[in-house]
Amino acid sequence: MDQETRGPGRTGKRAPYANGAKKRAELVEAAFRVFAEKGYLGLSIRQIAEAVGTSHTALLHHFGSKEALLEAVLVLREEREGPWRQELISEKGLLETVPAVMRHNAGIRGVIHLDATLRAEAISPDHPAHHFLLRRNQDFVDSVQSELERELAAGRLREGFPPAVLARQITALVDGIQLSWLYDESVDMAEHLQGFMDLIKKT
Amino acid sequence: MDQETRGPGRTGKRAPYANGAKKRAELVEAAFRVFAEKGYLGLSIRQIAEAVGTSHTALLHHFGSKEALLEAVLVLREEREGPWRQELISEKGLLETVPAVMRHNAGIRGVIHLDATLRAEAISPDHPAHHFLLRRNQDFVDSVQSELERELAAGRLREGFPPAVLARQITALVDGIQLSWLYDESVDMAEHLQGFMDLIKKT
Repeated sequence: MDQETRGPGRTGKRAPYANGAKKRAELVEAAFRVFAEKGYLGLSIRQIAEAVGTSHTALLHHFGSKEALLEAVLVLREEREGPWRQELISEKGLLETVPAVMRHNAGIRGVIHLDATLRAEAISPDHPAHHFLLRRNQDFVDSVQSELERELAAGRLREGFPPAVLARQITALVDGIQLSWLYDESVDMAEHLQGFMDLIKKT
Repeated sequence: MDQETRGPGRTGKRAPYANGAKKRAELVEAAFRVFAEKGYLGLSIRQIAEAVGTSHTALLHHFGSKEALLEAVLVLREEREGPWRQELISEKGLLETVPAVMRHNAGIRGVIHLDATLRAEAISPDHPAHHFLLRRNQDFVDSVQSELERELAAGRLREGFPPAVLARQITALVDGIQLSWLYDESVDMAEHLQGFMDLIKKT
């Protein structure tokens, strides 16, 4: 999911494939904005095609389905958001990064709405994004857990609270607070995550 | 969940209304089980009607829409779950009750799935269940907050952590952990909520 589709190394004749890949990337880019602004559920593939300035047929040609387009949008999101978060963790540590990510997320409502919508729709194992979202969440839990292990080893966390449990709590809290905030933007997401960090910090 | 729907004990000329109300209650009861087993999104109103053993027309007559039926199901859920939780809180206090509720919820997957699905769908303010779910969540936050204030006054909570923030964290954590568990039932929901209670308890 986090790798681009690779061509089998053809030359000369690559132009058609390269053009296809470029067009596909443009469509993902456009759909990203459309989903971010308007969400996913309320749009038909025809409406999406219209909003991104292409035809229904072209969209289906490139992606096969509305869900597959959404999956491509989520991959794009990861590519953009992932490195930024990872840099911040390296620089500031996990305890400061999570609240900072929540402040950032308050500026990308459409994406957060999209995540919440798709995450619930994809609970069923036969949903096309199920395995991607399951794995993305598990990767998030794992990366938070290894940061927590580092914090614990550095003596910055209260003892007696297993990093595996804390990691799942943090990621679940992010999901739940985002959902609360989607219903009521007066909920301060960063404050709630900061509060959790204060609970687990060694005092 | 473990109580039956109680009739209002009407007799005589009230029969037409009473029959309508009784039929409606039976349909809600049946739909509760259907939604719990099969979820909500994948079913058309015709499929729901078939599963509850009535006609499409009868279902629309009683509820007006699939969404309104779902709302009735959620109201029924609250009527059943609410008193049970409230009794447990009075008896055991909030800190023990929340993990106990999570253990209970692990036995009603369909309902938890239903909640997660509807909650995400109803983020849009024009969804028929939006205001109901917003208010239900706010009521939950408020009741947890007042229990936390009681615990704090009794000297059982760490100081310096505002009950309003803790209450939102607990309810968000419940939502987020339930979502994690819906994807992976090896996630121990009670353990994660117990862990949070251990973080906020005075040691």
